[in-house]
Formats: sequence, structure tokens, C-alpha cells
Amino acid sequence: MTSEKMIIQIKEWLKEAAGYIQVSLTNKLLVSQKSNRKDLVTNIDEETQAFFIKKINQNYPNDRILAEEKGFDTIESLAGRVWIIDPIDGTMNFVMEQENFCIMIAVYEDGVGQLGFIYDVMKDELYWGGRKQGVFLNDQKLQQPKDTALSKGLLGMNAYMYGKNIYAAGEIGHASMGIRVSGCAGIELIAMLKGNHIGYISNLSPWDYAAGLVLLNEFGYKYSNIEGKPLAFAKREYFLAATPTAYAQIQKDFIRN
Amino acid sequence: MTSEKMIIQIKEWLKEAAGYIQVSLTNKLLVSQKSNRKDLVTNIDEETQAFFIKKINQNYPNDRILAEEKGFDTIESLAGRVWIIDPIDGTMNFVMEQENFCIMIAVYEDGVGQLGFIYDVMKDELYWGGRKQGVFLNDQKLQQPKDTALSKGLLGMNAYMYGKNIYAAGEIGHASMGIRVSGCAGIELIAMLKGNHIGYISNLSPWDYAAGLVLLNEFGYKYSNIEGKPLAFAKREYFLAATPTAYAQIQKDFIRN
Repeated sequence: MTSEKMIIQIKEWLKEAAGYIQVSLTNKLLVSQKSNRKDLVTNIDEETQAFFIKKINQNYPNDRILAEEKGFDTIESLAGRVWIIDPIDGTMNFVMEQENFCIMIAVYEDGVGQLGFIYDVMKDELYWGGRKQGVFLNDQKLQQPKDTALSKGLLGMNAYMYGKNIYAAGEIGHASMGIRVSGCAGIELIAMLKGNHIGYISNLSPWDYAAGLVLLNEFGYKYSNIEGKPLAFAKREYFLAATPTAYAQIQKDFIRN
Repeated sequence: MTSEKMIIQIKEWLKEAAGYIQVSLTNKLLVSQKSNRKDLVTNIDEETQAFFIKKINQNYPNDRILAEEKGFDTIESLAGRVWIIDPIDGTMNFVMEQENFCIMIAVYEDGVGQLGFIYDVMKDELYWGGRKQGVFLNDQKLQQPKDTALSKGLLGMNAYMYGKNIYAAGEIGHASMGIRVSGCAGIELIAMLKGNHIGYISNLSPWDYAAGLVLLNEFGYKYSNIEGKPLAFAKREYFLAATPTAYAQIQKDFIRN
């Protein structure tokens, strides 16, 4: 069960973490490479994750946690209540741009998304919501975007998939009104929640999509791995989310043909 | 000659136009196609351009104007004083996202950039400056960004050039820390002025780069057409701007080899 109290707590934690992150940007970041030179982590990613883990352990000691940084990046199953956290989504942007990054937190129960929070820290825009509760920007309830066709809207895209035409991502992009590459899953998911983009194609880990799926679901968006199978919440997968019309068109005309 | 008075006037016109644009977003836009289905113009592009042309004609009746929309999109020469205007740069974003678009105004004298203004309307961020005067964000003077190498920074990119590897744009992108695609030249040029991106590769018309060049020049960035020749201020050209180190590396390793 999630509760109103839990929502209030998570919002407080997010604001506290955001304050810490913003102050940290006035100091020198300690940047390390993970799997390759473009896969970065900073001391702030790790400290922010530790902050959330401490809060969850204090308040919900029986819950389990799946999170991006070391020690928490795998989980046996989604049984029971699981928190899925990306302390800084878009670390490259955080390092290079000091903007266009998000904190993302999701609460799942037995594999079903209950709460989702995507916080654009530098804009102070918190997109959040819960199952059968709708989607909010800060305190304002958002309207469900229109079900726009592929040819009529912009598509968030992973640059590598676009350039290499992986799963026809290049062709799908050309069939849309254009692609946009922000380098941050949270920013792309927000663009869909606002109705600015009709879809998003990328290569994502569970903490990149867990919060977003709760919110996309409220607005009737379709999502899956790119082959149309349920997302596994395990290792990185090619990801597709789109309006129902664009999703069906992408599956029919580009993935399954 | 440009003057302090001219700077104050242009800022006033920009604020007035921005107010009109923001109000216009509460109404239905009239969207038309120009050369193809992805090349859009709205009634607001045209009305905003007409507003600036009227102001310039009233105040500087001897000056000439080069601007994106109909009737003003070619000019015989850059002799004398010429205003170069993009009333809404990033019209696709304006229509689809209602953000991530700019107004751009430049003043040139005998082909030499004197003043440049890039206004991110929705963020209310005006990047402006003049020859030998530096670059400002609203009222605050900006520091010159570092001369970062290609492998150490993000690159703004035209998606089509990246996908088709035109002038090795795909390879150049892979050599960087990553590409970003915003769909708006002004937004990409701002990212360079902030030091967030080290360069920008695109296919641009004079009104897409005229204001930006004045500001990039103040910060020591290098720019040219992608083959290293001076930009012609005529038809669309493949465009490259980057830090001196990244520019030299792109020319040597990718364009001329």
C-alpha cells in the first residue's frame, strides 16, 4: 500500500536532495568513468543515492531497493514493495550542462507501478502521480495529451540507435516530424507527459523507465521493449513508448514487417 | 555605427515581440508548410517578422533587412548596415513544444557583425552582445568558456547530417562525448555561449547563424562552412562552429583527411 503520507515524504526528500545537488554544482565535481568514457558517475550521484537509501531504510525498513549506482543495481524479483531510483538521470548532462538532468523515484508493489516521480531539478518541475490518481506538475493536475500519429509529432531518440538505424530507429525518426536528443530519459518522458513529443525510443535500464511508466500509464501511452514484449526490469533493453496510434504504427510498419 | 540607443531599442522590441508570442500560444496557431511537410511557418512567424520590419523602417529607414519569411529572404549584398532576423527560430518546436525556440536579431555593417541577440522567449533569457563588447545573459556579463577538446564535450548536431554521416558528422559525433539535437539553432548557440556544448554542426541559413556569430566571435570560437570556407550569408550551408581546439581537430581528422 502507498499512502498520502508516503507521497508527502518523497516530495520532501526530493526537495532536500535537489537543494544538495544545486549547492554541489558550486563545487568541483568528482567524475569517474564506469563501463566506458561516456558512462560517467559523480560523487553527487552516489551521495544522492545514499541519501534516498537512508531515508527509505529509516522509514520503510522492510522495503527493497533497486538503484543505478553501486551495490543496488540488481534485484532478484519485484515481489513485495520495491523502490526504483535513479539519483541523477542524465549524469553526462549534469557534468557538462549543469541542467537537463532529473531525479527519478518509483514505488512498485509486486511488479505493479504505484507511484512515479520525475524531478527536473534545475527547472524545479516535479512531474509525479500514482496509479489511478493522474499526473501532476508540481501542484497542478495535467490533462491527458492527444493520441497523435507518428507523422504528426516529434520523437525523443537515443542518438546511437538513430545513427545506426537499430530496430529501424532511423527510419522511424524520418517518418516522424523529427527527432530530439536530450541525453536524459527523464527529460524525454517529461516531453511526452506534456504532449510535446509523441514517443521515445532508447536503450534503458529499469531506473530509467520505472517512474515514467507509472505516469505514462495514467495518460494511456503504450510502452514495451522495442519488440513489443513487456519490459523486464532487469538489464538494459531497447525501449519504446508512444501514443497508442504511433505505437501501433511503429510496431506494424517498422518492427514487425 | 551602432549605439547604446540601438541596443536599448532592440531589447524593447524583443520584449514586446515575446509578449505577443506568449499570448499567441493561448490561441490556435495557423500552421502552413513551406518547402516540405517538416518545414513549417505560422502566422506568428510572419506577424513577428512584420513587427520588426516596421520598427526598423520607422527608426532606421536607410537600413536593409534580410529575414527568414517571405519577401525578405534574399539580399544582393551586405554593403552598408543590414539587419538579419529570424522572427521564430525553431518553428517546429514552437508548434510542437511551445518552448525551445528563439528570436534572433543581428546588425551587420559592410559584412561585419556588430550586434547579436538570441532570445529564448519561454525562459526569458536574452543572450546578446556586440563586437568588442563581450556577451551578456540579460544584464550579466558572461565569462568566456574553456577551449575544450572534441573528445571532452557535447556537440549540438543536425539529426539528418548525423544519421547520414554527411561530412563525417556521425563519426565526429562519436568522437565527442555525445550529440544533442534540440531542433533550434538559437538553443544550440546558447549552449555554446554557456560552455555547455563545445560545438555545433548543422545546415543553416544566414538568419540562423548571423546573431550567433557575433557572440561566438567575442568568445574566440571558430566558425565557417563545414569545408572551412567563410560563410556566404546566402543560401543554406553546412555549418561548423566549435572551440578552437575542437574546430582544428574536426577539420584535420574528419573533413580534410
